Amino acid sequence: MMESWSFLDTDESNFRPLVVIELAKGTKEETIEWFTKRIMDKKAHGGAQLLIKPLITENGVENTYLVGASHLRLLLGAETVGLVKECSDNSMRTFTYSSRKTFKHFADDNHNFLTMAECQYIIKHELENLRAKNEKMIPGYPQAKLYPGKSIVRRLLTSGILVQIFPLHDREELKKLRHSWYGRVKVGYQPLDDIRCYFGETIALYFGFLEYFTFALIPMAVIGIPYYVFAWEDYDKYVMFATFNLLWSTVILEVWKRICAILTYRWGTLLMKRQFEEPRPGFHGVLGINPVTGREEPVYSSIKRQLRIYLVSLPFVCLCLYFSLYVMMIYFDLEQWALDYHKENESNFSTLMLYVPSIIYAVVIEIMNRIYRYAAEFLTSWENHRLESSYQNHLILKVLVFNFLNCFASLFYIAFVLFDMKLLRQSLATLLITSQILNQFAESLLPYWLQKRYKRRMKKRKCSQKTDTDLSLAEQVNMEKEMGTYLGTFDDYLELFLQFGYVSLFSCVYPLAAVFAVLNNITEIYSDALKMCRVYRRPFAEPTANIGVWQLAFETMSVISVVTNCILIGMSPQVDALFPDSKVDLVLTVALVEHLLLAIKFIMAFVIPDKPRDIQTKLSKLEFESLEALKQQVRAFKMQLHFLSIHH
Amino acid sequence: MMESWSFLDTDESNFRPLVVIELAKGTKEETIEWFTKRIMDKKAHGGAQLLIKPLITENGVENTYLVGASHLRLLLGAETVGLVKECSDNSMRTFTYSSRKTFKHFADDNHNFLTMAECQYIIKHELENLRAKNEKMIPGYPQAKLYPGKSIVRRLLTSGILVQIFPLHDREELKKLRHSWYGRVKVGYQPLDDIRCYFGETIALYFGFLEYFTFALIPMAVIGIPYYVFAWEDYDKYVMFATFNLLWSTVILEVWKRICAILTYRWGTLLMKRQFEEPRPGFHGVLGINPVTGREEPVYSSIKRQLRIYLVSLPFVCLCLYFSLYVMMIYFDLEQWALDYHKENESNFSTLMLYVPSIIYAVVIEIMNRIYRYAAEFLTSWENHRLESSYQNHLILKVLVFNFLNCFASLFYIAFVLFDMKLLRQSLATLLITSQILNQFAESLLPYWLQKRYKRRMKKRKCSQKTDTDLSLAEQVNMEKEMGTYLGTFDDYLELFLQFGYVSLFSCVYPLAAVFAVLNNITEIYSDALKMCRVYRRPFAEPTANIGVWQLAFETMSVISVVTNCILIGMSPQVDALFPDSKVDLVLTVALVEHLLLAIKFIMAFVIPDKPRDIQTKLSKLEFESLEALKQQVRAFKMQLHFLSIHH
Repeated sequence: MMESWSFLDTDESNFRPLVVIELAKGTKEETIEWFTKRIMDKKAHGGAQLLIKPLITENGVENTYLVGASHLRLLLGAETVGLVKECSDNSMRTFTYSSRKTFKHFADDNHNFLTMAECQYIIKHELENLRAKNEKMIPGYPQAKLYPGKSIVRRLLTSGILVQIFPLHDREELKKLRHSWYGRVKVGYQPLDDIRCYFGETIALYFGFLEYFTFALIPMAVIGIPYYVFAWEDYDKYVMFATFNLLWSTVILEVWKRICAILTYRWGTLLMKRQFEEPRPGFHGVLGINPVTGREEPVYSSIKRQLRIYLVSLPFVCLCLYFSLYVMMIYFDLEQWALDYHKENESNFSTLMLYVPSIIYAVVIEIMNRIYRYAAEFLTSWENHRLESSYQNHLILKVLVFNFLNCFASLFYIAFVLFDMKLLRQSLATLLITSQILNQFAESLLPYWLQKRYKRRMKKRKCSQKTDTDLSLAEQVNMEKEMGTYLGTFDDYLELFLQFGYVSLFSCVYPLAAVFAVLNNITEIYSDALKMCRVYRRPFAEPTANIGVWQLAFETMSVISVVTNCILIGMSPQVDALFPDSKVDLVLTVALVEHLLLAIKFIMAFVIPDKPRDIQTKLSKLEFESLEALKQQVRAFKMQLHFLSIHH
Repeated sequence: MMESWSFLDTDESNFRPLVVIELAKGTKEETIEWFTKRIMDKKAHGGAQLLIKPLITENGVENTYLVGASHLRLLLGAETVGLVKECSDNSMRTFTYSSRKTFKHFADDNHNFLTMAECQYIIKHELENLRAKNEKMIPGYPQAKLYPGKSIVRRLLTSGILVQIFPLHDREELKKLRHSWYGRVKVGYQPLDDIRCYFGETIALYFGFLEYFTFALIPMAVIGIPYYVFAWEDYDKYVMFATFNLLWSTVILEVWKRICAILTYRWGTLLMKRQFEEPRPGFHGVLGINPVTGREEPVYSSIKRQLRIYLVSLPFVCLCLYFSLYVMMIYFDLEQWALDYHKENESNFSTLMLYVPSIIYAVVIEIMNRIYRYAAEFLTSWENHRLESSYQNHLILKVLVFNFLNCFASLFYIAFVLFDMKLLRQSLATLLITSQILNQFAESLLPYWLQKRYKRRMKKRKCSQKTDTDLSLAEQVNMEKEMGTYLGTFDDYLELFLQFGYVSLFSCVYPLAAVFAVLNNITEIYSDALKMCRVYRRPFAEPTANIGVWQLAFETMSVISVVTNCILIGMSPQVDALFPDSKVDLVLTVALVEHLLLAIKFIMAFVIPDKPRDIQTKLSKLEFESLEALKQQVRAFKMQLHFLSIHH
């Protein structure tokens, strides 16, 4: 990777801008010079060996730079990041430069072998792995300390010199994608492979999950409709619906794992080796020796972190939970007040007023969720986790616990303390529908509208009537610089998670929830797609092999819903009537059924294999081949040694 | 691994016999010649490059052969099987011949660097990987078909030409081990590291688990004694005991994972790469192409196997379960009869007679378990699983389900149908104690006694008065040939599993069970040690990193015991008295407590890390180093290519 790279073409004639780097206004000349030099320097000299060009607009140079790389450099980078691509024999293999000829669609002059998202991911990886050598600080900024091995880009980001790095949109490709994704009204699957090519695996997997989940809810919705239409209230029909729901939710979660394996195998991420995780950008500590790498880098005592978690974060979360319950009690007071008002002066207005407390409460819940989200992010960041994965897990745990209680506490209270099924149904419907409307609005329509307005103003000011594709590069970059940042799939999954809760926790009381969920998800696909394509800056592709901790979260929800549904059925008057003599028998029967259902769930999860058989075969084939290759390599190495010892 | 091995010394002067091969009487000369030639042949010619010598006794050559290997051959073999040894810097690393100097205690003349068990494991591995080249059959036996790549030893075994392969005992070492293990009466830990050196990791891990489990039961036993002595029957004390038991059982199972990681890290097996699994010896099918390896080998349709499992094995298991329940009902008839008899003619004899049905039933259960075991083995073998691991999983599942029902069905029936706590206590005690006595007897004392008698006869016949260590090699081999085969740790774990069931399922009814379990396990350690050292042929060492499916089995048992204990407590008259007005409240409270306990269990299992922090650090360090090494290797490879391209 050193000498052999000296012949890399740094020919700028076919420079294709891939990534934009925006430096702060007034960044010192010497810093810029040093930084661009490090980016362009040869690998052998510790550089990134990329191409970089300042963006020249009408107003001159604007501290914005375009980064690209030669085709060869990208191929070598693909090897470094461990990309997995399809071979000519249809198997998936880790790409190496030396075996490049065996890959499908590879040709030395085919610059589309790597997708643009992959190229941008490679450049991001190379930039982040540009490390300080002997620099003690960033030239020109003595307060921005460096130590050997520290990622330069991360330090530039944390010290505010680097404003942002983002990948450029490809106007042509985006237009094509938009058209096939949501351009025409059609019934059919999303172009997941195209989404993956353009936005990367994490986002494509989210849309895959959203689509799968919507399809999976359809049977529930279809079975749920007649319950509502004919107002079925029979005992056996309810039990059947709930039982079907509970087992169905296990099946869909298990089957998703298989579909996920199929998708990520096709995309190569199922086989990608986990890269060694570097400290996350915000991590700080005193310089010490990392026991794992043996390198000098900031270390932070684990005990201190534990203290922060258990003495500050945990009490804070508990306080928030208490506050959420307090708000809930206020809601019940309001509800009571509305009911009293309705009783006193009965009118159309008062009937409408009955729904007002629920709607207000739903709005308050959404607001509290969002405020808490910021607090949780701040706290988790303050806990100073070394790895991004650990940070994410702590954040997700905090957010999930709060959101779960915040959204469902009132429903639990109505169901199991007030025993008011009518109110439960009404409350559930109001909460679900209000939160869906709010989400759709806050997530995509609002930003879209804001951005439209901004664009219109921009255009007015410049008096130009160009369409998107006609924009010059400089105009495109400047426009994208102003777009919002997509903060990852967290909120999208969280929304689905809460929706799953509304649908499954009390499914036997309100079978129509699944119908609303399906309707919401269909528009959600469109609005999320719109958001990705129109509202936000293009995000960097993130290879991923599964939906991670969300799988666990959904499975936990499905276990909790077994418990709640069994209790709800046990409480229904129809079931009560079946055990006229003894309430004890009723409770015992319900408990028995619940345990049986849980047992069946666990057995089903155990019996259904996580990966389809053909994927399993392909994986073992690869494992076998790599073992064989290792043997061959050892053998070749020994032969070589032998050969050398003979000839000397 | 080919040319470079040509210099291996095949000098027979310091031949150390390690493994014994016994061929059938009357094996054809040409077969023996071919087989020994293949064993001695150079690796380059497809042989195993081991040393083999016929055993010469007073009666001449007896078709028994001793296999050994040169020191260098063993070191290269250690690399092939992927042994992990300790380095000079106290880290554990995969042994390679080229890096041999960096390992602790390595010296070219130190023949104890590899333990004898490791050497024997290497030889076994090499023998099993001795594969047919172009032979269509075993010379002299046209019915014993071969195809390229088929393991010769496995074919020889299945066609009955090879009677057995077993590793030799090391009389000196064994004497030392016996002394430190159970030679003196002492309180203290077992010499697990010595056991591991002599018998390998699987057996050492079993003894480690047995010891750990015994220590872990002591708190339960200590807390249980006063309940029995003072006949405590208070509600809160029972609840406390049961709650403690339930949480304690979760803790001990979680902590075991950590201890297991510490042990197997020290032994190197935690880091050992999984070898590619070959088809198990009994697997048969028509020749086809294996989709994984691409080699020609027998394949067997998965659908056929599924049909066998679901249409034959499953019904058979259900039939056995039904039969077991039928026998249980007969036991209850007997019990009733004994009770009637006792009522009619009350006497000391009749009081004694009360225990007879339970004892008979316990004996019958043991017999049924053993018979079923054979049936299960036959069926699972007939299901024709390709891999040993799949075979084992199906066998364990079959055996566990039956044994669980067979042992505990009567107790469940007494507890939850008859509601007879007195009978439950009596039945539990009788079953537990009888099965323990039977097991101890059948497992070690009986074979020991048989073997003693056999030895005495042998010695009488030969009129020699030699002690064990004075025996000549030939006498030793002949004696060991006649010893029983140790069939693995399956039965030992199963016994512990059932014991865990007796202790935890009904712990709140019979707190003394833990005391009996502790007492039994202390003698079990001694009798199992005796069995390993005295009764059985030495088994081959089997590297393993954990107790596998047994961990899951114990955890499942611990979940079931939460349910049973909660119900038992709910049924006790003291608890009943706390809810005088409403039985419903009682049942609901019990159900609530049960769910809380289960939730706590799952959270505890989630929160307690499976590996101690320092082991985790060491593992990530190794992972990091191997990633770095890979990078280095790629770099070196590229430099080499570059170097070559310049010089040509």
